[in-house]
Amino acid sequence: MGGDLATFPTDHIAPAEALQTPPPLVPVPAARTRTPAEEARALVAAGTTGTLATLSQGGEPWASLVAYASLADGTPVIRVSTLAEHGRNLHRDPRASLVVASEAPGDDPLDAGRVTLAGVCSRPAGDRLDEADEAFVAAVPMARHYRDFGDFDTYVLGVQRVRWVGGYGRMDSADAGAYHAAAPDPTVASADRAVRHLNEDHADALLLMAQHLGGFTDATAASCRRCDRYGLDLWVQTPRGGAPSRIGFAEPIDAPDGLRAAAVEVTRRARSAAGIEGGGHA
Amino acid sequence: MGGDLATFPTDHIAPAEALQTPPPLVPVPAARTRTPAEEARALVAAGTTGTLATLSQGGEPWASLVAYASLADGTPVIRVSTLAEHGRNLHRDPRASLVVASEAPGDDPLDAGRVTLAGVCSRPAGDRLDEADEAFVAAVPMARHYRDFGDFDTYVLGVQRVRWVGGYGRMDSADAGAYHAAAPDPTVASADRAVRHLNEDHADALLLMAQHLGGFTDATAASCRRCDRYGLDLWVQTPRGGAPSRIGFAEPIDAPDGLRAAAVEVTRRARSAAGIEGGGHA
Repeated sequence: MGGDLATFPTDHIAPAEALQTPPPLVPVPAARTRTPAEEARALVAAGTTGTLATLSQGGEPWASLVAYASLADGTPVIRVSTLAEHGRNLHRDPRASLVVASEAPGDDPLDAGRVTLAGVCSRPAGDRLDEADEAFVAAVPMARHYRDFGDFDTYVLGVQRVRWVGGYGRMDSADAGAYHAAAPDPTVASADRAVRHLNEDHADALLLMAQHLGGFTDATAASCRRCDRYGLDLWVQTPRGGAPSRIGFAEPIDAPDGLRAAAVEVTRRARSAAGIEGGGHA
Repeated sequence: MGGDLATFPTDHIAPAEALQTPPPLVPVPAARTRTPAEEARALVAAGTTGTLATLSQGGEPWASLVAYASLADGTPVIRVSTLAEHGRNLHRDPRASLVVASEAPGDDPLDAGRVTLAGVCSRPAGDRLDEADEAFVAAVPMARHYRDFGDFDTYVLGVQRVRWVGGYGRMDSADAGAYHAAAPDPTVASADRAVRHLNEDHADALLLMAQHLGGFTDATAASCRRCDRYGLDLWVQTPRGGAPSRIGFAEPIDAPDGLRAAAVEVTRRARSAAGIEGGGHA
């Protein structure tokens, strides 16, 4: 305890980065990914439950589950009771952070995407309070039953720091300005379903993508781990071992129902690169 | 901010307690439930992922996802890197809390069971370090890839306070002594599967339990929300509204595979009380 913290590196390096994965056999240009700020916004938009860290009476850190909503600019809204420890804590000291996590794509819980938003909570008033309360009830329907309970306060978290971890080897910080300015990903609500559909019904198309768009010409199988408005994250099996492969869409998706057309397009492109006639259905 | 905290009640009352549910029409004795300490131990034993709250450089609370294991007495073990903010935080100030949550039985995320363990982290040495590292690698298999990385420290959380919330209207605190002394529930690993099985294949048996053991003689349907070594938590539909009903087993379950026999016994008892010949299979 209490060693020289100045000697620590200033950023995190995932241990699994040291677990080498084989590169593509044919070089391919890097496909566009979401920025860390966009990743953070997507995680916050996709969830309604997070863990709040507040300060207990003696300044100790207190972790507790909360439901949350988010405003159009990604600002989190919570409703907490002064009968609960986190509510009393915020009343005393408004500093807080909120972590929101998604499900891990595989069995490893630390490969889950998550984001910590750290800042200071405040109680909005007037139109801002109405906006916050409406967002909260929309995100957490049960809240309509206690929206008028006197012991509940609505808080917005004024975000000061954003730390995104997308799983092993995918992590970065973002400042509050970038976080609020980032465009929401319209595919957030449909992404998990699309990933399941691709894996259940279109493993052949995923393999063609890995072989002919991802440069893994020796791929023997491929599955989809994540998708977003810019493309697909595949996990590719090769005789050299498993490896990640990012497959970009032709254009960023701008509509909530855009994933299907984008998957059809990228499948057609993979079939064309493979010299297979006609487009695939995805 | 900063009002008179002394006026706050010292314990939490769930808002949904004010949402009245109809009582049984026939009085029934209260069935045994797990103690808050046993609930806390069960939640910790069932998971491998939680959210840690630590203190950042300026004393601000920092929430972050962690994988954890637990020792035989329920003490949590974490392995964190000094390259990550939470690792640097613990190095500077070992005060921490860990929240572990289960899935909510329905659509409402705040009906999930969760527990906050608050205390002080320390780095074990000697046999205790070996025990902690072995528990961690057993709980988090990926950790074997980075168990020898120099930037990772193993910590145990010395529990000082335990706050359990089992969902709406189910919550209590436990002291550290009761937490460590509580008997683990051997059914933790099989409970979710048993609940699914009861709901999918034995809705008729659940309805008989609600009607003839739970005192809801007007029940029209029943589903199982949770189970543990002492009994089943049902949600009962009646013309008077939905209501919870606790159905106790004849004896506490002492073995990991004991749920099936206990469900068969309680089904037989419900059929017998209903005047139906023969025992049911559950």
